[in-house]
Amino acid sequence: MKLRYGMVGGGEGAFIGAVHRTAAAIAGNWELTAGAFSASPDKARRSAAAIGVARGYDSWEEMLAREAALPADTRIQAVAIVTPNFLHAPVAIAAMEAGFDVICDKPVAESLEAARAIADAARRTGRRIAITHTYTGYPLVKQARDLVAGAGAVRRVMVKYTQDWLSRAADLEGNKQAAWRTDPKRSGEGGATGDIGTHAFNLVEFITGRRVKSLCAELGALPGRTLDDDASALLRLEGGAKGMLACSQVCVGDANDLQISVYCDELGLHWRQEQPNTLRVGRRDRPEELWHAGSNRAYLAADIRAIQRTPGGHPEGYLEAFANIYQAFGAELLTGKAADGAPGYATMDDAIACMKFIHAAKQSSDAGAVWVDLDTL
Amino acid sequence: MKLRYGMVGGGEGAFIGAVHRTAAAIAGNWELTAGAFSASPDKARRSAAAIGVARGYDSWEEMLAREAALPADTRIQAVAIVTPNFLHAPVAIAAMEAGFDVICDKPVAESLEAARAIADAARRTGRRIAITHTYTGYPLVKQARDLVAGAGAVRRVMVKYTQDWLSRAADLEGNKQAAWRTDPKRSGEGGATGDIGTHAFNLVEFITGRRVKSLCAELGALPGRTLDDDASALLRLEGGAKGMLACSQVCVGDANDLQISVYCDELGLHWRQEQPNTLRVGRRDRPEELWHAGSNRAYLAADIRAIQRTPGGHPEGYLEAFANIYQAFGAELLTGKAADGAPGYATMDDAIACMKFIHAAKQSSDAGAVWVDLDTL
Amino acid sequence: MKLRYGMVGGGEGAFIGAVHRTAAAIAGNWELTAGAFSASPDKARRSAAAIGVARGYDSWEEMLAREAALPADTRIQAVAIVTPNFLHAPVAIAAMEAGFDVICDKPVAESLEAARAIADAARRTGRRIAITHTYTGYPLVKQARDLVAGAGAVRRVMVKYTQDWLSRAADLEGNKQAAWRTDPKRSGEGGATGDIGTHAFNLVEFITGRRVKSLCAELGALPGRTLDDDASALLRLEGGAKGMLACSQVCVGDANDLQISVYCDELGLHWRQEQPNTLRVGRRDRPEELWHAGSNRAYLAADIRAIQRTPGGHPEGYLEAFANIYQAFGAELLTGKAADGAPGYATMDDAIACMKFIHAAKQSSDAGAVWVDLDTL
Amino acid sequence: MKLRYGMVGGGEGAFIGAVHRTAAAIAGNWELTAGAFSASPDKARRSAAAIGVARGYDSWEEMLAREAALPADTRIQAVAIVTPNFLHAPVAIAAMEAGFDVICDKPVAESLEAARAIADAARRTGRRIAITHTYTGYPLVKQARDLVAGAGAVRRVMVKYTQDWLSRAADLEGNKQAAWRTDPKRSGEGGATGDIGTHAFNLVEFITGRRVKSLCAELGALPGRTLDDDASALLRLEGGAKGMLACSQVCVGDANDLQISVYCDELGLHWRQEQPNTLRVGRRDRPEELWHAGSNRAYLAADIRAIQRTPGGHPEGYLEAFANIYQAFGAELLTGKAADGAPGYATMDDAIACMKFIHAAKQSSDAGAVWVDLDTL
Repeated sequence: MKLRYGMVGGGEGAFIGAVHRTAAAIAGNWELTAGAFSASPDKARRSAAAIGVARGYDSWEEMLAREAALPADTRIQAVAIVTPNFLHAPVAIAAMEAGFDVICDKPVAESLEAARAIADAARRTGRRIAITHTYTGYPLVKQARDLVAGAGAVRRVMVKYTQDWLSRAADLEGNKQAAWRTDPKRSGEGGATGDIGTHAFNLVEFITGRRVKSLCAELGALPGRTLDDDASALLRLEGGAKGMLACSQVCVGDANDLQISVYCDELGLHWRQEQPNTLRVGRRDRPEELWHAGSNRAYLAADIRAIQRTPGGHPEGYLEAFANIYQAFGAELLTGKAADGAPGYATMDDAIACMKFIHAAKQSSDAGAVWVDLDTL
Repeated sequence: MKLRYGMVGGGEGAFIGAVHRTAAAIAGNWELTAGAFSASPDKARRSAAAIGVARGYDSWEEMLAREAALPADTRIQAVAIVTPNFLHAPVAIAAMEAGFDVICDKPVAESLEAARAIADAARRTGRRIAITHTYTGYPLVKQARDLVAGAGAVRRVMVKYTQDWLSRAADLEGNKQAAWRTDPKRSGEGGATGDIGTHAFNLVEFITGRRVKSLCAELGALPGRTLDDDASALLRLEGGAKGMLACSQVCVGDANDLQISVYCDELGLHWRQEQPNTLRVGRRDRPEELWHAGSNRAYLAADIRAIQRTPGGHPEGYLEAFANIYQAFGAELLTGKAADGAPGYATMDDAIACMKFIHAAKQSSDAGAVWVDLDTL
Repeated sequence: MKLRYGMVGGGEGAFIGAVHRTAAAIAGNWELTAGAFSASPDKARRSAAAIGVARGYDSWEEMLAREAALPADTRIQAVAIVTPNFLHAPVAIAAMEAGFDVICDKPVAESLEAARAIADAARRTGRRIAITHTYTGYPLVKQARDLVAGAGAVRRVMVKYTQDWLSRAADLEGNKQAAWRTDPKRSGEGGATGDIGTHAFNLVEFITGRRVKSLCAELGALPGRTLDDDASALLRLEGGAKGMLACSQVCVGDANDLQISVYCDELGLHWRQEQPNTLRVGRRDRPEELWHAGSNRAYLAADIRAIQRTPGGHPEGYLEAFANIYQAFGAELLTGKAADGAPGYATMDDAIACMKFIHAAKQSSDAGAVWVDLDTL
Repeated sequence: MKLRYGMVGGGEGAFIGAVHRTAAAIAGNWELTAGAFSASPDKARRSAAAIGVARGYDSWEEMLAREAALPADTRIQAVAIVTPNFLHAPVAIAAMEAGFDVICDKPVAESLEAARAIADAARRTGRRIAITHTYTGYPLVKQARDLVAGAGAVRRVMVKYTQDWLSRAADLEGNKQAAWRTDPKRSGEGGATGDIGTHAFNLVEFITGRRVKSLCAELGALPGRTLDDDASALLRLEGGAKGMLACSQVCVGDANDLQISVYCDELGLHWRQEQPNTLRVGRRDRPEELWHAGSNRAYLAADIRAIQRTPGGHPEGYLEAFANIYQAFGAELLTGKAADGAPGYATMDDAIACMKFIHAAKQSSDAGAVWVDLDTL
């Protein structure tokens, strides 16, 4: 049995909507049944036809209202939100109030306040919500977390996430993706920090199992830009680990270069998103190890083997990582019970930590790169 | 609009069936509508339920007969064959005779004769057939072919495809995948040569655009095995290029290590399936180049950009490569016309060349590793 | 003709002395003629015999005095200083005052004051001095500098230098190398910052051609240690570039992992010391490039080809990089004139910048990781 | 104490002579005392002056005669031969007859007969001779041999050695290195097979500890060339292992790309000369291992640690590998006794096996690529 879902956003000219739909198709336990694919009714209709969804609506409000009125075995069960950031909160809250569970792209909202409003709505309505921090869907990222958990104290974390698609001043012109991401009204207060820094930040917290307590950040932007397109930060984590985070969309030559190194008492590990099927693990006085992905790799944890679709040497990638998030959340919604251990998706707590990161980074940088405590936000 | 298809094989305990289904789901232009998922009616029914296919049949004969009797807008339009090799020919021929197009796993049949019978049936019935030589579905493999086409004479090709899943004598016990692949009755005369050597061989012909004319091969097997599990071959290609091919399922430590190097007058290029999103290109007196995959990479050919789902740095993998084959063949079937240029899948000519490889390799090895001309087969 | 030199330090149990001697032998224009290889006369004599140096002295004071008294065509012409840091300044100053040129290991001294005293002595005596910041001796590091010089503004620099040889509390026991490096009296105020952070810092300034203006640093150490063994810093460079620097000797699994990335308006480049013969260069919308070392690589600058001993594909390493420093300084001393362009070694200005880095990092960290301006030191 | 040696060849315009001299300098136990650096007396004298050798002779005959007449504590003890191949045998034989030990570049001679004459001379005179098969001097190549020795039967070996410096027809013009290497009178019957194929062949025998028994080879050359510039071969080894060997000097984009993979019952290992400080080791159902070079790597065999000059992460390269051969042979000559275990250099037995390879490869190819048994040569 598949979970029926409706999508908000993701029509013509969008990028991440198609990714969500393909991820859901790979997951295999979701079925796209309805959609309000654009804020423009015309585009919404054309998109529904192109995508092949019968129940295409002119607006998300219409979708929520009309779907809620359908019989229980027909109407959608969940809503996937793939709009620009500023619409996440109103849609998510309305969807939950209308009785639907929610899966939402990151960052969860355009501001910390909006994120908290979503969390309140979830508590109030009892609905579930998952945030698609894609990179934690990779099997070897989960394996990294397992390895760190058994490796003593975390000492040092270094994460970078660099791209070059905004590296020229002219990159904002005529690019729908760039337009909303660099517009504070639609994106929120974070530029690169919100768009990709949150992924890097979330990855740090996910793999270490520790929250970042405070940071000292310096943001920058090419002339003429309102939001940051480049950021550096020092981090202090729970338990005493130190960290460094860089995110930038103006690093020439880099496509989607998310890399993380975590050093613990007993080992150091290294993962690079562009080569996601290999995890490098170093130990003192021993040959370095390359842990490879694959459903049949006996040395991987059983639950990590189980989320892979192919045996070793058959590379899975970004879409499969994304699918793992859909699959985990879908299974939870279909069965009504959470998996053992950590959920296979980012929770509202994770998402709010990311919003604090965006806010603290800006606050820190505006004050000349001073330390800001995330607990005070 | 999606192409309705029925699957033969791919039920409980199978590997490649699920890969085909996921690939079709990613492709987006196929819809699994029917299936005869096992030779055992019980398993077939259980599998249909588990997969969520309403029109599950007890046998492929039943499926062909009953689907053919359905209205044109309801019945399946194509059949996907994912059985052990010896069933490919009877199913494919019957399917085409019943009016269905066919997509079939490789090698196309258990023998050269059976392959030729399929080709005859295709000519006779006018139906189309695609063989899923997965690795030619990778975007950078296509880019490699484009680069080679403009690089002068091909001088040397080196390809290896090594695995270790049969590296222990005991690996044949209790392993359904191993059982049929090492049984001449179900697999045909090729062991590793048929299962993976054909992929390597096809990749050579695909990237170079040249057929292999003759070979000198030496096959081996662990004690007690009937079919080869290891092979080495020298190749001579049309146009004078020399080649070397190795395939083995007893190479300890290797998962699915398909690597190819092609040297031409103007460049040398190198691709490794386990890192499929990078193509290394060397030229005389110039920095080496790494060509990266991505739908937005301006330096890739337009038709190669078009088959990718994500921009640079978001890795696609094996399932997406497989999906590209489904997508191309599906588009051809839905529109009734082939794409410009080379088809996006292996044709019967390609598949028959692979069958000649299997046969010639065995013939050569049996005679003490002497040269065999493929044209004479 | 070779330059006769005497060595101070580098006897039994030492590490870097043998490196200097081998580097000088590879350079080919130096001849080890004298030495005071240990502070202990016994060890000094035993070491001279083992090394095969006829004019072994009991102390560096004796060496300077007696060599100065020899005929001009016999006595040493330069002194190589490979002692623990605190002896650099007294030896260097006395050597220059005795009429000898000096080549000295890094960091140039145990304190900024001592470094300035060396610089004063050089100015006063007119002698020349080179500091062996090894990593700038690598051909591709020089090529990186050339590429950056023509690539527009520098935007971002990220450098890390991580090791694990002090990663356990017990690593200080019974290890001569560890003992002096972690003793403020002999090492100075920097631990990891002085031992390896200075290399990372110097590499940033060398490749970018820009000085670091200010930094915000956080140092750490395992319990019971006086000097830092781990540091993170944000950097601000002349011209507006932002930087991040990490150095650590407690990063488990890392041997000598110095990596640098520099992003400019026109390109990004990446170099890793453990794979020193490849420089990765990324440009917008073009295949990534791998620049390879080799005396015959036509695409490398002529002066960079000239310092290599072997053609492409014959890897040179750490000792050859070190030899390049000896060779450049030796040629300058033998001919009496500097090469065109930048010197092939670190100057006192470079070395003093490194000393400011050590001092500023500690000052910043002691104050809670606040910004410190290096110009004020 | 150092071993005094004289060099034959290696003057102006030569390549490998300088490599030998630098290797000897790094080794530290050799001292270049005499030389006949060219067949042209003028060049010989100029080269001696440039190199800084006092006892420069006009011819090798003169050097042998006059050195032999010097007092025992003054005259050279060994001769290093770095001439084109056809001179190896006359010089080596004369040198041994004059009472000198010999270190000789590879291939040991221009023909199998000449090689046997050298071996006869060594037996007759009781002198020692080492052949510089450089690549076996790499520490991790020795470690590979150790690992293979404990890994059960060898199953498969794959080696390639590819370059591109002769990839254009015009490459023979005006290139001294190319001129003699492609001239049968000076090089012998092997082109690429002799120049680099012998390295690949020797590496196979060294790492596996097994001789090649027979081969089937196909040679090729660009139009207008007398000697092969490209070769492919199937190999059969003692003990049943199968092998493949490729060597070529017309593979565009490759500099000095020697790679070897050896698969045994218990593991597979992979080494690439251009990245010589890493050895990749795969085992069934375990993370892949990267063994790294370094004098302090506890997991390396003690005798392998001992031949390295720097700790982990400080890359050594081609010259250091070469130096290891000089160092081992020098120590043997100075002490008069061989090291325990395998010698640290290629012996005449190894060298004769290489000569058989050249001869058999040509014989096989001339007959249409048929099998040739090396024992019959």
